[in-house]
Parts: sequence; C-alpha cells; structure tokens
Amino acid sequence: MLVEFGGTRVLCTASVTEGVPRWRKGSGLGWVTAEYAMLPRATNTRSDRESVKGRVGGRTHEISRLIGRSLRASIDLKALGENSIVLDCDVLQADGGTRTAAITGAYVALHDAVGWLAARKALAGKPEKVMHRSVAAVSVGIVAGEARLDLCYEEDVAAEVDMNVVCTGAGDFVEVQGTGEAGVFARDQLDSLLDLAVAGCTELAEAQRKALSSP
Amino acid sequence: MLVEFGGTRVLCTASVTEGVPRWRKGSGLGWVTAEYAMLPRATNTRSDRESVKGRVGGRTHEISRLIGRSLRASIDLKALGENSIVLDCDVLQADGGTRTAAITGAYVALHDAVGWLAARKALAGKPEKVMHRSVAAVSVGIVAGEARLDLCYEEDVAAEVDMNVVCTGAGDFVEVQGTGEAGVFARDQLDSLLDLAVAGCTELAEAQRKALSSP
Amino acid sequence: MLVEFGGTRVLCTASVTEGVPRWRKGSGLGWVTAEYAMLPRATNTRSDRESVKGRVGGRTHEISRLIGRSLRASIDLKALGENSIVLDCDVLQADGGTRTAAITGAYVALHDAVGWLAARKALAGKPEKVMHRSVAAVSVGIVAGEARLDLCYEEDVAAEVDMNVVCTGAGDFVEVQGTGEAGVFARDQLDSLLDLAVAGCTELAEAQRKALSSP
Amino acid sequence: MLVEFGGTRVLCTASVTEGVPRWRKGSGLGWVTAEYAMLPRATNTRSDRESVKGRVGGRTHEISRLIGRSLRASIDLKALGENSIVLDCDVLQADGGTRTAAITGAYVALHDAVGWLAARKALAGKPEKVMHRSVAAVSVGIVAGEARLDLCYEEDVAAEVDMNVVCTGAGDFVEVQGTGEAGVFARDQLDSLLDLAVAGCTELAEAQRKALSSP
Amino acid sequence: MLVEFGGTRVLCTASVTEGVPRWRKGSGLGWVTAEYAMLPRATNTRSDRESVKGRVGGRTHEISRLIGRSLRASIDLKALGENSIVLDCDVLQADGGTRTAAITGAYVALHDAVGWLAARKALAGKPEKVMHRSVAAVSVGIVAGEARLDLCYEEDVAAEVDMNVVCTGAGDFVEVQGTGEAGVFARDQLDSLLDLAVAGCTELAEAQRKALSSP
Amino acid sequence: MLVEFGGTRVLCTASVTEGVPRWRKGSGLGWVTAEYAMLPRATNTRSDRESVKGRVGGRTHEISRLIGRSLRASIDLKALGENSIVLDCDVLQADGGTRTAAITGAYVALHDAVGWLAARKALAGKPEKVMHRSVAAVSVGIVAGEARLDLCYEEDVAAEVDMNVVCTGAGDFVEVQGTGEAGVFARDQLDSLLDLAVAGCTELAEAQRKALSSP
Repeated sequence: MLVEFGGTRVLCTASVTEGVPRWRKGSGLGWVTAEYAMLPRATNTRSDRESVKGRVGGRTHEISRLIGRSLRASIDLKALGENSIVLDCDVLQADGGTRTAAITGAYVALHDAVGWLAARKALAGKPEKVMHRSVAAVSVGIVAGEARLDLCYEEDVAAEVDMNVVCTGAGDFVEVQGTGEAGVFARDQLDSLLDLAVAGCTELAEAQRKALSSP
Repeated sequence: MLVEFGGTRVLCTASVTEGVPRWRKGSGLGWVTAEYAMLPRATNTRSDRESVKGRVGGRTHEISRLIGRSLRASIDLKALGENSIVLDCDVLQADGGTRTAAITGAYVALHDAVGWLAARKALAGKPEKVMHRSVAAVSVGIVAGEARLDLCYEEDVAAEVDMNVVCTGAGDFVEVQGTGEAGVFARDQLDSLLDLAVAGCTELAEAQRKALSSP
Repeated sequence: MLVEFGGTRVLCTASVTEGVPRWRKGSGLGWVTAEYAMLPRATNTRSDRESVKGRVGGRTHEISRLIGRSLRASIDLKALGENSIVLDCDVLQADGGTRTAAITGAYVALHDAVGWLAARKALAGKPEKVMHRSVAAVSVGIVAGEARLDLCYEEDVAAEVDMNVVCTGAGDFVEVQGTGEAGVFARDQLDSLLDLAVAGCTELAEAQRKALSSP
Repeated sequence: MLVEFGGTRVLCTASVTEGVPRWRKGSGLGWVTAEYAMLPRATNTRSDRESVKGRVGGRTHEISRLIGRSLRASIDLKALGENSIVLDCDVLQADGGTRTAAITGAYVALHDAVGWLAARKALAGKPEKVMHRSVAAVSVGIVAGEARLDLCYEEDVAAEVDMNVVCTGAGDFVEVQGTGEAGVFARDQLDSLLDLAVAGCTELAEAQRKALSSP
Repeated sequence: MLVEFGGTRVLCTASVTEGVPRWRKGSGLGWVTAEYAMLPRATNTRSDRESVKGRVGGRTHEISRLIGRSLRASIDLKALGENSIVLDCDVLQADGGTRTAAITGAYVALHDAVGWLAARKALAGKPEKVMHRSVAAVSVGIVAGEARLDLCYEEDVAAEVDMNVVCTGAGDFVEVQGTGEAGVFARDQLDSLLDLAVAGCTELAEAQRKALSSP
Repeated sequence: MLVEFGGTRVLCTASVTEGVPRWRKGSGLGWVTAEYAMLPRATNTRSDRESVKGRVGGRTHEISRLIGRSLRASIDLKALGENSIVLDCDVLQADGGTRTAAITGAYVALHDAVGWLAARKALAGKPEKVMHRSVAAVSVGIVAGEARLDLCYEEDVAAEVDMNVVCTGAGDFVEVQGTGEAGVFARDQLDSLLDLAVAGCTELAEAQRKALSSP
C-alpha cells in the first residue's frame, strides 16, 4: 500500500513466508521484520544507492530496526504461528516523517497479510487474536520554541528538538525517541510534545481503521 | 516520471550535477549514466535487497549498463557540455520488459533534464542539438513458434527466443540483444523479430513525442 | 579511561586530529564523532567480530551514532575550532548499560582532550567555553512492574520497558529513548522512569566533576 | 586449454563436481556455469584486481553470464545428469575479442570434461547425446564504414558498431549482441555483419572438431 | 587473561564450543583457531577500525594465522576431541612485540580452557595428554649492530633485522620468522638471534608454569 | 615472464607508474609492491575466486606482503626515484613452492622494468645502482626425517617442517620463515635446512644472471 503524509510517499508491502529463521524453529513463534530504504531521488538532491556503496548505512539500519520493533508490538507472535512476515517500506518521495509514515503504513500492510494467512487457515491462533493492538507513529518537534506535529523537511531541519513517538490505538506508548538536535529540552517541553504525539496517533488509528474496513 | 507497460511500472528520474567525473574533466564532454534496480516486492515472490546482500548482482549491473549506453546514443555529449546526468530506473512492479520500459521512460526523463539545463543556460551547445535522436526499446520473442511483441512475465518464461531491441525514432538500431533461452534460432526467425521490434519502437517514439509536448 | 558500572567495563579514549573532514572545511566548526564496539568475549557467549563479518551491525551503528550525538551536545563546536575528536568506546566486559556507561565515560575523555588542546593553545574559543555542558547517561526500566535504575544484563532481558536517558548536569534532556520490549507503557510509567533517570544522571554528573578535578 | 586469436590468449578450463547446487537437487538436471576474468596485466596498462577491489565489476559479470548461457546451449543438461561443471576463462593477454575467444575455447574444455565423465560412466544419458550442438563465437564490427571479422583492440576502439555473435556448428544463432558504440546502424549493415559472423563461426566449428579429434 | 610485556598489554581469552566446523566433523579431532586485533587507540596515533573499513587487513590476518598455528603445536587435537576453541587476542596497548605477547598469553588461556573441559569430562583423551607441550614466543632483533631481546616500539622501528621465534618449553622451535627490514643479515647474526630467543622463551615457559599453578 | 619450477608455473609481470602513492610524495623515494594470486584451477581441485568471494584471503595477503618485502630488499628506492612498480605474480599451475618461484621470477621482471626506466632516463640515481642486490628464494623442508630442497606439493603436505628462505646473490638472508607443520624442530635440523637453502639460492642467482643477460 502507498502511504502519503504531505509530501512524503512510502510504499509499504508485507511478504509472507511459511516457516521462520533457523534460530527460531520449533519455538511455535512467528517472526516479523522490516526493511526501510529510500530511492536515490526521494530527496531533493540525489543520494547514492546503498547497494552500489556495498553497505547499508547506519541511519537505514536504525530505522529498519525501529519499524520491526514497533510492528512486533502489534502482533501476537504465538498466535501468528511459525510464519515470517517481511515489511518493506520504500520511500518514493521524502518530505519529513518518513519513518513514522512507514510504521503507520506497515501496520495496514501487516494487517492485510494476517488476513491473507487467516483466509488460508495458516495461523496458529484465532485470527482476531493475532493483531492484538493497532500501532501508529508521528513525528513531533519544537520549532521556534513551539511544539508542532508532523514536521515537514524544512521544519525538521530547523527543529530544536525532534521526537518520534509510536503509540497503540489505546494511547499507550510503544516507543519514544526524542533528541535535542540543536540544544537540550526541559521536562515541560517533553510533556507538551508527548501530549501532541498521543493526540496525533489517536487520529491515525482512526484512519487505519477506515482503511482496513474499506474493501 | 512513471512508465507503465501492461503490469510493469518503472519510476524513471534524471538527476543533474554540474561538472563531470574526474577522469573526464577538461574534455568538454558531458556524461550520462544509469542505475536500474528492482524493489524487493516488484515481483510476485520477494527477492532480497542488493543493499542488504552487500553487492549489486550481475543482472542489475548488466541492465544498468545497457540503459546508460542506449541513452548516450540519444544525446550529443559535446553539446551537453561538462554536466553529468544520472538516470535512476526503479522498478515498482515487474511483469516482463522492465529494461525496455526503463529505456523508453528514461529517454523522456533525460529530455526533461536537458530542458531544465537549457532554461538555466547551462548547456555548451544549442539546446535543440543536445537531444539529437530519440531512443525507445521493446522486447520481442518467439513463444510457441510465433514472434510476439512486449512479452509479459509468463510469455517471457515460456519464450524460446528472447530479444531486446533499442531503436531510434528514425528506425535505426542502437542495440540488439537476442538470446536463445531454450534453444537456438534461425536467420529467418531473427529477421521477423527485428521487423516486429522496429515497428514497436516506432510507435513508442510517437508516444514519447506526445508525452514531451504535453505540459 | 576505563569506566566501570557493576559488571560493565568500557574503555573510552579520545583522539584529536587537527583539521576537520572535507565537507566541513572552512566552516570554522569542529567535529566530534564516536565509535562503539564490543570485544568478542565481552559477553558470556562469544560473538563474531564485525571486522571478520565484513560489516558493522545495525546495533553497533545505532549506538555509535547515539554516543556521538550526545557528546556533541556537551561541546561548543565553534569554540572548538577546526579540530576533530574521535571517541572510541570499546566494551571489554558487558553486563547491561554499555551504551550509557560509554556516554558517561566518553564525556570525561572528551573533557581531557579539550584540556590537552587548550594547553597547546589550539582552540578557537576560550577554553572554559568549549565544554559548555556536562553530559551523562543512565539506563532505566520497568522490571516486574517496578521502575529501576541501572539494569544489569539479567534485569535488562526481563524488563518490560527499557529506556536510555541522556541528561546534562543541569537536569535537561539531551536524548530520551524508551521502548516497550515486551509490551507497552502508560504515561505515568513513563513519568516515573524519567524521574528516576534524572536523579541518576545528577549523581553521575557529580562523579564526573570529581574525576576531572582529581589529577 | 589455451586459446589464441591474434594477440588474445585465454586459458579455458573445466572443473567437474559431482552433484548440483542445492536449488537444483533432485531435478535430474546438470548445471554448467562460467567465470571470466582478466589478469591485471592482460592489457597494455595495468588494471586493478577485482579481488583487491572487493567486488566483481559489471563487465566481468556480464561476460561470465554470456559464456555460461552460450555453453548451456551446447549441452543436454538432462543427459549430463546431476553433475556441475564450472568453466574458468582467464585472459592472460587481451587484444580484442576476449569473450568470443573464451566461448570458443570453453566449448572444447567442456567437451573434454564430458568425455572424462563418460569414461567414468558418470553421465545420465548416452555420451554422444550430451554435447548435442557445437558452439563458437566471433566478434564482428563496422570500422571506417566496412564490416570486419575478429576485431583487434585498436579496431574495436575505432568501431562504429560492435557485435558478438554465438553460433552453433549448424549455423543457427545462440546469441546476438550488437551495439552502436559511436552511432547507430541500419538494417542492411546489421545483415552484412550477421553474414560475416556466421561464416566466421563455421570456420571455428571446423577448427574445434580438429582440436577434439587430435589426441 | 591480561598479558603485559613492558608497555604492551594484550587481553587473551579462550572460548570453547562443543563440536567442530563442518569440514572436520567425524574426524575425531578438535580445532583451535585464533583472532588477533588491535583497538584503534592501542598505538600512539589512532588507526581506523577494520570493522568500519569492512575488511581485515593483511597484517591482522597474518598474525591471527601465526597465533593459531603456534598454539595448535601445543595441543593434541585427538585428545582434545571434537571441541573447538577460539583464542581472542585483543591488543589494548601496543609497544612492540604484540604478536609474541599474544602467543605467550594465549597459551595460558588455552590451558585454562582445557582445564575447564577436563572438569566437565568433555575431553576425548586423558586431561594431562591434551596440552602436550608448552609454547611461548619472543621478538628479537638487531639494533645498532647488536642482538636484543623484546624490542619495544622504538627499537622495532630502528631494527635492521626483526625476528619472531616461537619455542616449546623444551627449547625446540615451532616457528621462526626473521626479516631484514632495512638490510640483510649474515648467518652468524642469525645464530646469535636464535640463541637469544631460545633463552628468552625458556624464561617465559617458567613464568607460564607459575601463572598456571597459582589459583 | 613465465617462471617454471617442476610442476609450478607462475606468470610474473612488472608494471611501472610515474609517481608514488600519496603518503610517499615528496620523499624522493620510489615504491615497489607485489600482488600474488592463484587461478582457480591452478591446483588439482578448483578453489573459489577471491574476487567472487569479495575478499582477499589471509594466505594471499601474507604471500603478497612477503614478495613485496623481499623485492624491496633488492632495490635502492632512493636511486629508483619517485616511480612505482607493481609486481603481479599469478600462479597458473601449482605444485609446491609457488611463493618462492614468484619471488625468484619477480626479481627478473623487476630488473627488466628498471632497465626500461633507465632507457627512458626516468631513474633518480645511476642505473647500475638501482638494483643493488639480486634476490632469489627456495622452499626447503624435512620430509621423513630428511632435509630436502624444492618440495613439490606431495612432499609439502607430508613435511614435518616447512621453510621458505629468501637470499641475496651474496648468500645473505633477506627472510627466513620456518614452521613446524606437524611437530617441532631442533636447532641442528634448522641448521641443515639453512645450509641447503643457501646452496639452492646461489644456484638460482646464477640462473637469474643468465636469464637477464640473454636478449
């Protein structure tokens, strides 16, 4: 599925394989992992391909791991049974918030993949138990002293504090990553960012529900 | 630009850099190169990312080189002046003929990039001299004993002979690559494939002209 | 310097080079970067060397970037002038909290390196302006429903929530990274973890001051 | 065996292994693959070793794949049975036409290897059925407006059109690869190149027969 | 264990795994291998990490192989049985003679590992038969025309001849590697270096005995 | 030039470049380096290409370094001036003693290259001063209790002690590398191996003189 947030467009797909990696065999548990990448021209100036450079960069690794971890929070791996799902998140166009868009879209792709497994009766648990929490993510930040939701690229560059928050549909936290890009931040600033983020994620959870109920 | 041929969708972009690689400096000539890649889920079964494997595969290399060579035939590198253009062809969805779709689409992207350079008065020669030939490509093949144009994935797999032909708008050849996947082919079979290919390329040249004249 | 926290031992050194990487030349700004690594036998079961595997893993990349970012918050890069400092953090023995121990120790090593530059009159600004904030880090987590400071390896594995917090000596945040390893966490849990972390960092700031004032 | 064409010398060897790669096991089919490489000083100016650069270049990959594909056309993989043959083509000295010399020499090496398997009664089919077609290759091109056979390095550089053709002993095509290095080519030029190539391959087929019948 | 020779400090550890690499399975023989590495700041000027460079350098490979070979001379691989032992030698601080210090320390670590296997009754032969020879190593060289033992870094750089000698406790040779760094050497010089080396190794064998008999 | 010792055949070439690597510029000194490699089928059973594996193995590195070091002992780098010479030693067929054959052959190739530079008046010193020592190498070993010269592959495998010795034409040592492959060796055994090696190198020096004086 193609997710769009402002100028950011991410293609999220889920690929199912029967069985799990060797180190997990016989555990009865499934496995969910993610790979994030950017097309070379997703940004305004072209960046070199990681395949050509021969190594995956630190930023790519870090985001892939974040997406995988976040999505594993949404799924009951025991109920999934020994199936593997790879979530590919490829950024076609980037304008801020690519990792949070990827998480939000990957949830829908993952849900579809589980539905497909359910239809083939390939799940270990009851279908409705597998996706036990919805998960969505937003980027928030402090720009010019003010807390803002969904930073575009220009705001992101100018932000004093930059934070990515992953929440469940129930408003609990899955992951909180805040960094003082150009400075440090006080407790009350952190609190207002968290408020903003939870509200944003709640709206996204609603949008995900709609996307999944439409045919 | 996004090119679609049947079930095949390729995103073609051109990125311009002032200057040329070191080995070409001071020559007065420009440089055009191409990079082809497939998203992991472009095909029906997921393939591993080349960035994760840490090396670009032989097939990818081969196609990138073909696209670059074909497009360099369309442009007067002296008139381009010391500018570099990278053509990125990313296959979002693959159903046969991805390399020929990439060439056909990359021509349009290259033409646009030259137009952009012309508008900035950054070309060495007269703008209308830079793109001195149009270039388009088709795949043809012999399936069940019969010559066919634009093979989809299933036909491609079943083809006895598989051929990619790159032609100019004037019907001359830029590149001819024919291979007997499952057998060999006689001279008269080769002749009928070439006829079919030239006709197909002529139609594409017309479509390219339309695409470039629309705003 | 060798930092010890419980069973965790990290060797932190700072290496100074005159000049900065090419992309930063002429900016008048210095550069601070970090590299984190684990000896193969730092953990209880031997892990393969990344040099032998031929690639730096995602976790290593992620932690190196975190350390570099955290330490850059402590230093005024303009006052540092065009000097580069590499912080090497090598884990000799690991028992939880290696990344936070690395940050806390690297601050002392960085401070020493700046002192060495000051003695050679190689700084652009006044020596006392260069290290404008102290920086320390702790790991906190929720184990068996209870917030705890400085998780050892066994607690870390058992933690429901795991959080790394980097603070300045003044109690402001530089970085907050919390993740629900085995579940999600509510806002009040997050609040109590943050309280615990700030208190822990304040104690470490005092220990750093002592270490730096001793000959 | 050592193949010499003008100033080009290629060492072609065939190595047999019992069994086939894992993905082909149980198919009853054999496997033939090729690896092409150039010694660093095969050309007039030394080129860096690909082992030292850590990656096989695009040109090397492309030629290895062409050789493998061409030779698989000469052999009945079912009659070969589950045996693997690797054809190594190492260019000791290069003066144009290295890939076509490699194909022509590799055919003789492959034939020898099949003879060796026949002597050990390790083939699945009748020995005389295994090598069901002879295969040879030539390079042809248009230099100064004129079609020529077996281009040496200097002609190759000067050629307007460069073409490699792989034919069977019966004069059918296995592979046709023509490229307008410095320009494009018309249908009648293509026709005269193909005539020249078929005649050249026919002569080589005769030379191969002689080489194989001498002790 | 941490070995110290003058300003050189090497951390030597032995890691035991049940079983042997695949190519050795069923042979009844054990396997001992070594990996040598230097921390980036072990020397006075920082050197880049091999993990970051993506390849293990020639010098590192060479020393790792030397350590492995030397230690295999001390152990009866049949009596060890199908167990694998990896010896990690990490140089924390380097001041000449790091490879010989590594061998001398690795012997003690290996002896301990065999003791641990004996306690778990996991050896194929009698425990006292497994470590059938002690092994130690020294560096000797000719500096300013004079033979010297245990060269520090400054002497090593100035040495005309540089030699590493590995001996058993009984005074036999396991390995002799002498090189004329800045010149050549005559037979009588070689003889006096060998005398010095044997004497040095004998002393180290005594020190190893003491280290192993202390609790 | 092609060197043959028994069943061993090594192709040794020298490639000259004006100038030296960056780290040596302005020193007035030249640079000589070597690269050793084996064709995949040089041995009886095929070994994988290092270019395909993506990394140069430890053994290859070790031998390349030995060849470079040995040849640098034969040349006055100051008299060579700021020129670089790469010695490529490619083993076409291996039957023991490939590294010593490579050194012996590379000396002749190096001498030729220096002659070529002399003819172009591109040397810093007097031509007759540049190659100030001849260098040759032999392998010796103890097989079945007896010292032997020039071990072939079968003897090499069976050898209890294996030693490579590089000598000057005057009988001095450049490098001595002895290893107890399957055991240890006493001083008198070492002595008899050295005697044998010096005698062997003296003969080779004579053969080199002849090769260089023939046109």
